[in-house]
Amino acid sequence: MKAHHHTLQIATRGKGLYPFTAEIAKWVASTGARDGLLTVFVQHTSASLTIQENADRDVTLDLADFFERLAPEDDPHYRHTTEGSDDMPAHIRSTLTQTSLSIPVIEGRLALGTWQGVYLFEHRAHAHRRSVVLQLLA
Amino acid sequence: MKAHHHTLQIATRGKGLYPFTAEIAKWVASTGARDGLLTVFVQHTSASLTIQENADRDVTLDLADFFERLAPEDDPHYRHTTEGSDDMPAHIRSTLTQTSLSIPVIEGRLALGTWQGVYLFEHRAHAHRRSVVLQLLA
Amino acid sequence: MKAHHHTLQIATRGKGLYPFTAEIAKWVASTGARDGLLTVFVQHTSASLTIQENADRDVTLDLADFFERLAPEDDPHYRHTTEGSDDMPAHIRSTLTQTSLSIPVIEGRLALGTWQGVYLFEHRAHAHRRSVVLQLLA
Repeated sequence: MKAHHHTLQIATRGKGLYPFTAEIAKWVASTGARDGLLTVFVQHTSASLTIQENADRDVTLDLADFFERLAPEDDPHYRHTTEGSDDMPAHIRSTLTQTSLSIPVIEGRLALGTWQGVYLFEHRAHAHRRSVVLQLLA
Repeated sequence: MKAHHHTLQIATRGKGLYPFTAEIAKWVASTGARDGLLTVFVQHTSASLTIQENADRDVTLDLADFFERLAPEDDPHYRHTTEGSDDMPAHIRSTLTQTSLSIPVIEGRLALGTWQGVYLFEHRAHAHRRSVVLQLLA
Repeated sequence: MKAHHHTLQIATRGKGLYPFTAEIAKWVASTGARDGLLTVFVQHTSASLTIQENADRDVTLDLADFFERLAPEDDPHYRHTTEGSDDMPAHIRSTLTQTSLSIPVIEGRLALGTWQGVYLFEHRAHAHRRSVVLQLLA
C-alpha cells in the first residue's frame, strides 16, 4: 500500500456548487489502483466540499440559497468585515460543510451511490482558483 | 496493510437517528485487524452520518427536532419539490452533517469515546433501506 | 505502510475555538513519516473539530457567536436539559461541525493551505480536558 497524490485546480465563477466527480474519477483511474481510500481535501476556508445529488440541478441551487439565508451577508453581528461582506459568511458556511471527504475505492471505482456527486462549494462572490488535494492510499 | 470492505444495509422507518455502532464493531472484529483506519460511507444524499451521545435517547430526539426547525418542510423558497416536501430538507440536513466518518481502530477496537455512538441519520419521512460502506485499511 | 497513534489532551477554558495545528505538526514530524494520511478524531460529543482561518482571530470569535445564535441555550424545545443549559446546544453544534478530520501528509508536512489552522471547538461553558486521537497511516 502506498500514497498517491494529485492537486486539482478548480476555477470558480462566484457562489455555488461546482461538480468535479469526473475529474476525481479520471485521476483515480490513472493510478491503476484497485482498492484503497481516497481523501479529497480543499486547501481553503472560504470554499468547502460536499457530496450531493447529481441529478436535479435545482437541488444545488436550493442548497446554495439555504446557506445564503442561514449565514447572510451584512449580519451586523460580524466583527470580521475587512475582507468584504461575503467573507465571514463564507467561513461559517465552510465550517458547516466539509473540508475533507473520505471515499472508499473498490475494484478501481469510487464507492459513490448512484445519485451522489462530489462538489466544490464556493462561498465567495468573485471568481477564484481553488486547490483540492487528492490522495489515494492503495 | 490492505483494504477490507463490507456493505451494511440499514432499514429505517422514517426520520430520526438509528444507532449502528454494534454492527460496525462486529464487522471490524471479524476482520481480525489490530490497528488501522475505518471509513464509514453512506451512499445516499437524503440520509447521513453523525457521531453522537449514546446514553440519553432524548439527545437524538432533540437533534432530529432541531434539524426539522432549521430546514423545515414546505419552505416556499425550495425549487426542488417534485420528490416530496421532505426531500429538499433531507438534502440540506445531509450536507449539514456527514457523508463519511473516519474512525481510528487501535488494538482491535474503535477509538470511540465512552459516550460516543455512530448513527445513521434518516431524513426522509418513509421507510428506506440505506447502504453504508465500511472500509478498514489495516 | 503502518499505523502510528498518539492521543493529545487539550485543556479548554469554556466555549470557543482552540488552535492546535502546532501540536499536530510536531507529532507528525516525530514519526519521521514522509507521505500518508493523518486522521484527527475527537472522543467527545460536546466538543468538535474544524479547520478555519488562522490569521484574523475575529473569524473564530464570529464563528463561536454564530453557533450561539443558531443553537441557543435555553431553547424551550429541548428535552435533554439535565446536564445543564449548555449541553444540548453543545451536541447540536458538534453534529453541525466535525468529529473527524482527514488531512493528507505530503513530504513530511500537513497539506494545509496557507491560511488553514486546525481547531478544537469547545461547546461547553466550563473548563474541560478533551482527548483527541491522532492517527497517521504512512
